[in-house]
Amino acid sequence: MKNLHHLFIISFLFVNWNTIQAQTNAINEKKNHSDSIVIREIYNRALSDGKAYENLRYLCKEIGARVTGSSEAQMAIEWGQKKLADYDINVSLQEITVPHWERGTKEAFWIRSENGEITKINGLALGGSIGTNGILRGELIVFNTLEDLKETPADKIDGKIIFINQHMNEKHIQTFKAYGGCYPVRGNGASEGAKKGALAVIIRSLGLAIDDHPHTGSMRYEDGVKQIPAAAISTSDAERIENLILNNPEVKYEFVLEMDCKKLEDKISYNVIGEIPGNSKQDEIITIGGHLDSWDTGEGAHDDGAGIIHCLEAFRILRSMNYIPKHTLRVVFFMNEENGNMGGKTYAQWVKEKKEKHIAALESDRGGFAPRGFTCDGSDANLEWLKAQAQLFEDYDLHVFDKGYGGVDIGPLKKEYPEIALFGFVPDSQRYFDMHHSPNDVFENVNKRELELGAAAIASFLYLLDQQFK
Amino acid sequence: MKNLHHLFIISFLFVNWNTIQAQTNAINEKKNHSDSIVIREIYNRALSDGKAYENLRYLCKEIGARVTGSSEAQMAIEWGQKKLADYDINVSLQEITVPHWERGTKEAFWIRSENGEITKINGLALGGSIGTNGILRGELIVFNTLEDLKETPADKIDGKIIFINQHMNEKHIQTFKAYGGCYPVRGNGASEGAKKGALAVIIRSLGLAIDDHPHTGSMRYEDGVKQIPAAAISTSDAERIENLILNNPEVKYEFVLEMDCKKLEDKISYNVIGEIPGNSKQDEIITIGGHLDSWDTGEGAHDDGAGIIHCLEAFRILRSMNYIPKHTLRVVFFMNEENGNMGGKTYAQWVKEKKEKHIAALESDRGGFAPRGFTCDGSDANLEWLKAQAQLFEDYDLHVFDKGYGGVDIGPLKKEYPEIALFGFVPDSQRYFDMHHSPNDVFENVNKRELELGAAAIASFLYLLDQQFK
Repeated sequence: MKNLHHLFIISFLFVNWNTIQAQTNAINEKKNHSDSIVIREIYNRALSDGKAYENLRYLCKEIGARVTGSSEAQMAIEWGQKKLADYDINVSLQEITVPHWERGTKEAFWIRSENGEITKINGLALGGSIGTNGILRGELIVFNTLEDLKETPADKIDGKIIFINQHMNEKHIQTFKAYGGCYPVRGNGASEGAKKGALAVIIRSLGLAIDDHPHTGSMRYEDGVKQIPAAAISTSDAERIENLILNNPEVKYEFVLEMDCKKLEDKISYNVIGEIPGNSKQDEIITIGGHLDSWDTGEGAHDDGAGIIHCLEAFRILRSMNYIPKHTLRVVFFMNEENGNMGGKTYAQWVKEKKEKHIAALESDRGGFAPRGFTCDGSDANLEWLKAQAQLFEDYDLHVFDKGYGGVDIGPLKKEYPEIALFGFVPDSQRYFDMHHSPNDVFENVNKRELELGAAAIASFLYLLDQQFK
Repeated sequence: MKNLHHLFIISFLFVNWNTIQAQTNAINEKKNHSDSIVIREIYNRALSDGKAYENLRYLCKEIGARVTGSSEAQMAIEWGQKKLADYDINVSLQEITVPHWERGTKEAFWIRSENGEITKINGLALGGSIGTNGILRGELIVFNTLEDLKETPADKIDGKIIFINQHMNEKHIQTFKAYGGCYPVRGNGASEGAKKGALAVIIRSLGLAIDDHPHTGSMRYEDGVKQIPAAAISTSDAERIENLILNNPEVKYEFVLEMDCKKLEDKISYNVIGEIPGNSKQDEIITIGGHLDSWDTGEGAHDDGAGIIHCLEAFRILRSMNYIPKHTLRVVFFMNEENGNMGGKTYAQWVKEKKEKHIAALESDRGGFAPRGFTCDGSDANLEWLKAQAQLFEDYDLHVFDKGYGGVDIGPLKKEYPEIALFGFVPDSQRYFDMHHSPNDVFENVNKRELELGAAAIASFLYLLDQQFK
């Protein structure tokens, strides 16, 4: 009986859809009304019999973590090709050259007091770090912030192992702001330490929750500065060290680590590109995307499995509605956002070389949480257009329509197309940094409805971009 | 070093707070500015060194589920008294008479095909149901909706066991709307079945996720109609039965159940009441609250541990700021919301008898998720006042300031005080019905920051009610 019920709904919708198609060609004052019908239909398709959740399960559980250059990254590329083709979307690969860093098989961290007491620590090498070449040990010196380290004379640091215990500021309402405040610790900590003779730099994980999961992420070595190993330890271990030192200020501690991660030769990899050709404005391109690579810990469920699935599902839904776009709609599963952004950079250069005309792009790379809205990196007119969409999304709990960041992958398009409007999808940010780059970023921590609502919001936004964006 | 840092922040804040106190007495055009400083300070205290998460852990893990009339409910009352007293809030108990229903120790559900195949089912007696008095079995008859049951002649139902497989409508964006649509199935299903001779009524759990957790909840027997057992089974079991019957339409199934739940004598219990006396308008009372009882499965973490903690933390924060309110502020931990609402009903009668003046009340009973805003059940002027608060909360991601429901516990105040303004706290609703009334409603499923942001929103709202509400 349920199947009959579904059949009924489907036939009803097809009738409805024909009405919509007629309406979109009709007089302007009916525009908003027909848009709201299309958006309602998109949401219905995402929330009933949507494919987002099952597709994310597959990407997380059957493929798993997909660090750039790994076999799993290649698996994900081939999965993406197949999925897009299955949904009747033209698919192609764009070859790119990517860096290749591997964690290796040995990672151990502990501290040892001068009395010989040993405390094991949960840690992860930072992405891009060199290995330790066997066990590395040195006297532990703790800094509360990167600034403290910079202000300390080299003779106090030389020959030691630095721990930078900089906390993300939990008072920021938007957790990305708190992340931004600590980002340089991860990125520059090693080189800042090396300049003063440190043997290695350990950082407090960039996460707000106190738990045992270390959070990795990219770091970079400054040219001309000695390269030293860099790792992150869990927030609960950071608290333990903080308390140990607070309670035993006279005791000296040694930090000990072993990591056999290494940088390998660059590899060939791919962006996966899906396309629905436009009708009246075929030469004008609107791109949406997320990144297919992830860090090598967890399953890259929120970062950025969710973004990939949002965009895939948006295209699937529009296709299932037999939607014929005005502009050419393109979805890109970018490779290598996490450690090099070669996918984003190469895509922007490539389309410019082909003399394509790009008018707008949107990225989803902030997790699969309940949608809050969209931000715009563009002109005042672009921002005005964005704000005008707010009322269409009011019933869907979206309220952020504001100036803001687009995304790392689509960012390079701005250089090639200064006039382009870049948009960022903004889900709720509260839980993101509990998982981000950690073993905790797994499928089980993505909520089905929240993921589906994200896909629906993006599909609706893409529809509006296509219909109304100037 | 961190402790010194904290000390510095605290002294800074006390200075700041004196400034604020001066400002609140100053000219009106400075009002909004000083309000925004107070709100920022409330959020800081909730997000840094807040007590909400640890207090919820205690309530969930050290006490646990707290069904009305149970020892755990009494434990929670005594915990509430102690907590409020610890935070320097005047505390008292209000005696109430409550119903007492117990699940018992035997609960088993299975179906048996005519070929003898047995499928075990995850189920829970609905709250208020009678037991089965040993094993009860009968031919299974399935309805897709309560309406289908009502429209079916009695001779098709007589002597059988009914399964009402009514799905919550996943297309609703607000999950409470989907819940409302199925609420009568749980409440009235048994009596509707009994009118047609059914032996027992089984319902599909009121939940949106497909999983193995059955969701209990209250049901009622219609006067003059035979009382028959009622239970809910998990959504995944409901799907299994749906598929079994779809794939084997010719096969007959028997539903078998045993439950030894029972209604006992009414008991004496308590509302826990905390109060901060008002200064200039001491006789005018503003109440906030949630409910201390829960269902007997899970830990009542979101329903309504979170609401209790929101209100407790709001009072703790205002107290920690040495805030002297104009009005008398009262926090009530209501007892028995889940199956009788005797806490809410008795409180309203009692305060009316004491001739108290009540101007506003707020309830938090929608879980501990990221805040979205507040709804108002009151006059047009009340609604206008609510909408005017929106801008103060913009930076905190709150955007719902609209007409809507207050809450079950504060609802009876309306009868005694038709002029009262009732407000409901509105967190994001997407994950609520994954946990609600099920073994899944545990502490681990509450996010620390989301809980803290709820407490901060409510503390800020209470401050604004006290300062500005007319």
